[in-house]
Amino acid sequence: MSGAMLVVTAHVGDFVWRCGGAMALHARRGVAVHLVCLSYGENGESNSAWQGDVSRDAVKAQRRAEAEAAAGILGVQSLDFHDLGDYPLPESADSVRRISEVLRRTRASVVLTHPEHDPSNLDHCRTFEMTLRARMQAMAPGHGSDFVVPPQILCFEPHQTELCGFKPNVLLDITEVWEQKWQAMQAMPTQRNLWAYYERVAQQRGAQAGRRGKHAGNRYGEAYQSIFPAVVSSLVE
Amino acid sequence: MSGAMLVVTAHVGDFVWRCGGAMALHARRGVAVHLVCLSYGENGESNSAWQGDVSRDAVKAQRRAEAEAAAGILGVQSLDFHDLGDYPLPESADSVRRISEVLRRTRASVVLTHPEHDPSNLDHCRTFEMTLRARMQAMAPGHGSDFVVPPQILCFEPHQTELCGFKPNVLLDITEVWEQKWQAMQAMPTQRNLWAYYERVAQQRGAQAGRRGKHAGNRYGEAYQSIFPAVVSSLVE
Amino acid sequence: MSGAMLVVTAHVGDFVWRCGGAMALHARRGVAVHLVCLSYGENGESNSAWQGDVSRDAVKAQRRAEAEAAAGILGVQSLDFHDLGDYPLPESADSVRRISEVLRRTRASVVLTHPEHDPSNLDHCRTFEMTLRARMQAMAPGHGSDFVVPPQILCFEPHQTELCGFKPNVLLDITEVWEQKWQAMQAMPTQRNLWAYYERVAQQRGAQAGRRGKHAGNRYGEAYQSIFPAVVSSLVE
Amino acid sequence: MSGAMLVVTAHVGDFVWRCGGAMALHARRGVAVHLVCLSYGENGESNSAWQGDVSRDAVKAQRRAEAEAAAGILGVQSLDFHDLGDYPLPESADSVRRISEVLRRTRASVVLTHPEHDPSNLDHCRTFEMTLRARMQAMAPGHGSDFVVPPQILCFEPHQTELCGFKPNVLLDITEVWEQKWQAMQAMPTQRNLWAYYERVAQQRGAQAGRRGKHAGNRYGEAYQSIFPAVVSSLVE
Amino acid sequence: MSGAMLVVTAHVGDFVWRCGGAMALHARRGVAVHLVCLSYGENGESNSAWQGDVSRDAVKAQRRAEAEAAAGILGVQSLDFHDLGDYPLPESADSVRRISEVLRRTRASVVLTHPEHDPSNLDHCRTFEMTLRARMQAMAPGHGSDFVVPPQILCFEPHQTELCGFKPNVLLDITEVWEQKWQAMQAMPTQRNLWAYYERVAQQRGAQAGRRGKHAGNRYGEAYQSIFPAVVSSLVE
Amino acid sequence: MSGAMLVVTAHVGDFVWRCGGAMALHARRGVAVHLVCLSYGENGESNSAWQGDVSRDAVKAQRRAEAEAAAGILGVQSLDFHDLGDYPLPESADSVRRISEVLRRTRASVVLTHPEHDPSNLDHCRTFEMTLRARMQAMAPGHGSDFVVPPQILCFEPHQTELCGFKPNVLLDITEVWEQKWQAMQAMPTQRNLWAYYERVAQQRGAQAGRRGKHAGNRYGEAYQSIFPAVVSSLVE
Repeated sequence: MSGAMLVVTAHVGDFVWRCGGAMALHARRGVAVHLVCLSYGENGESNSAWQGDVSRDAVKAQRRAEAEAAAGILGVQSLDFHDLGDYPLPESADSVRRISEVLRRTRASVVLTHPEHDPSNLDHCRTFEMTLRARMQAMAPGHGSDFVVPPQILCFEPHQTELCGFKPNVLLDITEVWEQKWQAMQAMPTQRNLWAYYERVAQQRGAQAGRRGKHAGNRYGEAYQSIFPAVVSSLVE
Repeated sequence: MSGAMLVVTAHVGDFVWRCGGAMALHARRGVAVHLVCLSYGENGESNSAWQGDVSRDAVKAQRRAEAEAAAGILGVQSLDFHDLGDYPLPESADSVRRISEVLRRTRASVVLTHPEHDPSNLDHCRTFEMTLRARMQAMAPGHGSDFVVPPQILCFEPHQTELCGFKPNVLLDITEVWEQKWQAMQAMPTQRNLWAYYERVAQQRGAQAGRRGKHAGNRYGEAYQSIFPAVVSSLVE
Repeated sequence: MSGAMLVVTAHVGDFVWRCGGAMALHARRGVAVHLVCLSYGENGESNSAWQGDVSRDAVKAQRRAEAEAAAGILGVQSLDFHDLGDYPLPESADSVRRISEVLRRTRASVVLTHPEHDPSNLDHCRTFEMTLRARMQAMAPGHGSDFVVPPQILCFEPHQTELCGFKPNVLLDITEVWEQKWQAMQAMPTQRNLWAYYERVAQQRGAQAGRRGKHAGNRYGEAYQSIFPAVVSSLVE
Repeated sequence: MSGAMLVVTAHVGDFVWRCGGAMALHARRGVAVHLVCLSYGENGESNSAWQGDVSRDAVKAQRRAEAEAAAGILGVQSLDFHDLGDYPLPESADSVRRISEVLRRTRASVVLTHPEHDPSNLDHCRTFEMTLRARMQAMAPGHGSDFVVPPQILCFEPHQTELCGFKPNVLLDITEVWEQKWQAMQAMPTQRNLWAYYERVAQQRGAQAGRRGKHAGNRYGEAYQSIFPAVVSSLVE
Repeated sequence: MSGAMLVVTAHVGDFVWRCGGAMALHARRGVAVHLVCLSYGENGESNSAWQGDVSRDAVKAQRRAEAEAAAGILGVQSLDFHDLGDYPLPESADSVRRISEVLRRTRASVVLTHPEHDPSNLDHCRTFEMTLRARMQAMAPGHGSDFVVPPQILCFEPHQTELCGFKPNVLLDITEVWEQKWQAMQAMPTQRNLWAYYERVAQQRGAQAGRRGKHAGNRYGEAYQSIFPAVVSSLVE
Repeated sequence: MSGAMLVVTAHVGDFVWRCGGAMALHARRGVAVHLVCLSYGENGESNSAWQGDVSRDAVKAQRRAEAEAAAGILGVQSLDFHDLGDYPLPESADSVRRISEVLRRTRASVVLTHPEHDPSNLDHCRTFEMTLRARMQAMAPGHGSDFVVPPQILCFEPHQTELCGFKPNVLLDITEVWEQKWQAMQAMPTQRNLWAYYERVAQQRGAQAGRRGKHAGNRYGEAYQSIFPAVVSSLVE
């Protein structure tokens, strides 16, 4: 397998919990996995790091180091930090442009990002919207002759799915890379409080996938919702 | 490719316009395609046949012959007519049981049928519901030890998609079997008035599919909406 | 103006509160207004009638008399009672057939009935569904050569709109017939408890209509949701 | 605390996994908890019981015994089995009437049942609909002068929430009765395969509840979606 | 009762019509009620004030005085005017920060604001979004160690509910404070045209609440839609 | 017929494909049709123009000339180009103000624009939102005493309707102006690739309209979704 995949997240931790399995799985098969983190999540998703009179820069450095470690475990090929700040994450036309340039350079055929709605976390919504805008910018000839065929967008799982209207139509079997995902999660000690929660998420998705067809031995899974129709040559899975 | 596919429709014409391409494509590749038509559509979808003092039996016989001809062109392996009557189509526990028996016998991994909602045609909704019920009956050990892994349900395109809340997430490239589908349509002269309409539907779906990725040469397509999440081993199309 | 309109309700009171204005308005202009009440609402919508040891037949007779009086005030041309019983109202293929026959006989171009969803009153949902089925039966040549062009379906306002997902896209100005509607309401003393409520509903819809365009003097209104697209020759109201 | 609660399920196992915590919690506080199981789930939800040439009656007896044991652990006060059969569960006007009679007799102010939609399990949808119909029948004076104030309906969690459009707006802290629920689950050895899955469901709901306000120590939870607006005297939780 | 409640509105009038009852009710019980008005509504919601050659400053002063009077009647403890301008209301990161600071200072456990959607009034949507963003900012340790447990968000009623997809799941009985709310409405003579409309809204919500259970004497109500699940210890209202 | 209609599009081509029939039809009847194009669509919707080392200014000039030609064919009375750039189109408070000024000057009673959602083209969503904001600005007395009665908003058809949640409730018969629309399409040679696609769209909408009532001879149509309820004096089409 060749090709490329792009992951765009609002905060550094998101890629591990939500699509770390997909990243490891595709990297292992030769797909080039690229990652963009729009912020370090230093304000709202680094709670345990704010001890004593730690500086903002120190918190950001700590989260960056964790993200690099986790990305390394998952086999990521390139990693961009946009450092936009978070809670709230501001809109940024410059970030949109930079994401579009990654799409042009990598020719990624699929982009993983946050779902459209999340009333508890508007940073995620904004990331979704900026990613869709970057997709447009990447496919426009007026921005350069290296314009791309527009990629599929797959939204990964938010923290509380029903709150976000998240309706997964794809369950990915990640059993074979679970150990790698689990290690990447442990490379994020600042968010240790989420480890058990997302281990259970993976087990539930694995159990759901195991009910259907040939993935009966499936034990760990990840859920995705596609934004655009898939174009296929066969309907038999 | 092996395996089996089941198509369940309310009226005899439906399979041609809505999923004739999928049937021909999979039959050509060795998938066993089975078809159940719950009615002959003699009341509401055979308008041109009601000429003079034609009898109901004659209309039904005419539609049955057309359906057999079209099914033959598309490579159908088995064809059941339940003759429930239409406009409206009544609920039938017996039909549910018979569909479940086809599922058990054929081990079909995917079922094509009407979408859940259609205010202009409740026969379609009832067929959807009976198919889902048959799926349950087929997977229950209490109805026999030959119970099945529950198949995916893919809804094909209704006449006016937006009226039905139809949201396709799969576009099937049927370019290579278009001629076969077109012939099957012509084997249904009673509904000649629909030929041009569904030729354009196929062209529109082909054009939409052609915008995305590797199906750029796609000229004809069919749209489907999956009811259950697909379980996959890769996210790269 | 000529033509015909059909109203189908679950219980005898419904037509007064929900579309009495439309009935009076169109009757006044020469449209033939026909009414079908599937039940007398004797069980669940005649609370004040169940005094002492009144008999079921007496309650039904009382409600029938009220409905006839109200229908007379509104200018109804024909009135059918199906007497199916209520709370719950059972499904009835015979009623579907009878409604379809009214459609064939009257050539009504529009049918007013309950909206699709109402968790507090499934009799209303069933009436909607039976009406849609009757529409199919009326348009099918196989049920007789007097088949009709399928009419528009307009759903009138339920008791608590948001609970029912009711989304009106039409506001009808009933100011000129308000007095008639008010009298028809008073012809239903068994449901006296609803008079003030539905007077306020009419005032709210009047106020909402008054905000838009040329109906600034509008003081009373009724809200409707169309099921099928309107086919028009102009977009300027 | 006094009052009464009614639980209506399609199959015998459902009450344990989906609302066993609510049942134990309210029973402990003096609320009378009543249970109606429309079927034994013998066909579709007793897979491990169909060993060798076991008879249908034996499977039903086994499931009935399990349900009685689990209900006893949870403090249920009355338990009705309607024995309608399952996969599929048929509609039954008689069951609707019997549920309405329980509502009249117990004056339950809240009913727990399945959510409205579930494409993988139409028995659940039918139970929801029959429960709403029973609610109507119970509140109608025409069916007896002991008619009730209509109760709130709370839908408990289906197996795969997003597939069902389930949107919980209430999270119940069941930490204090978790051990009881866990024992009730173990009283259902026929469905041993679900124990771990629903333990994790309880942990996820507990974690979600723990994020909000004063339930920080919350470790186990259950999720519910209310069908009707709650009428309250205060907005501060 | 203690604790705090925050109300955030786009224009000065909104709090009176939409949640004046809740404000008076909670203030009376000892809850500290805080209010933020993002604009004076001087452009689009002060129609009768634009007489002759009145200046913009005079209109704003008049609306401010009215808001202060109404807030006083309702028992508001603090009142901030952001003076952002209206029709349209611009986005403002500074306002988001200021709202988040009120949340940190008051520890409000519930925030009342506009619903998410309103095609006729995007100022309301923007206020909703800014409030959700402020909630995020308030709960982030990186913005200060006084971060808060995230409050519940309750959306109050828009002018035309169905247009906004507003689905209330909470009805508040405000009968005991109706006179106070009515006085506060009259303290807003610039919008005299809305008095009768919102009196009827209160009566309709009161009637709807009165149908359910123990609030039978309820005569006035307000409707709310919660954004996040409520975490509860009991399901019996 | 008199009055005025405003069309607001994101890119120069949109008005031709999506509402060219409505424009020609109303212009022919004496309605003043005004057009605002927020960008030239030079980046993302002028693919065939980017040949060799053509300059951006040349592409824009070419598209402007095409738009002027097409508008002339359709009978447009005024045409504004805002030249905001595209893919992505930026938000612009100045453009909102300019659109509101057109509304004030022309007193248009209906505005045609893009639908609210389109994940493949956020320029369209932004145009919808800016148009709604302009509607607010136009109706606010604080922005000038020539404020207007707020116009109806009708959304025209996006490229792939189901992807956008587009639910048309109005089908306009454009048979009599089809030749004019077809000529206007041909005046846009840069987007020659869309001609056949939108000819088929018009045929499908014509066929759908032809199924209902008196437009049986309808051969070409356009679909619209109204945002606000229509206020009417009759329910009979």
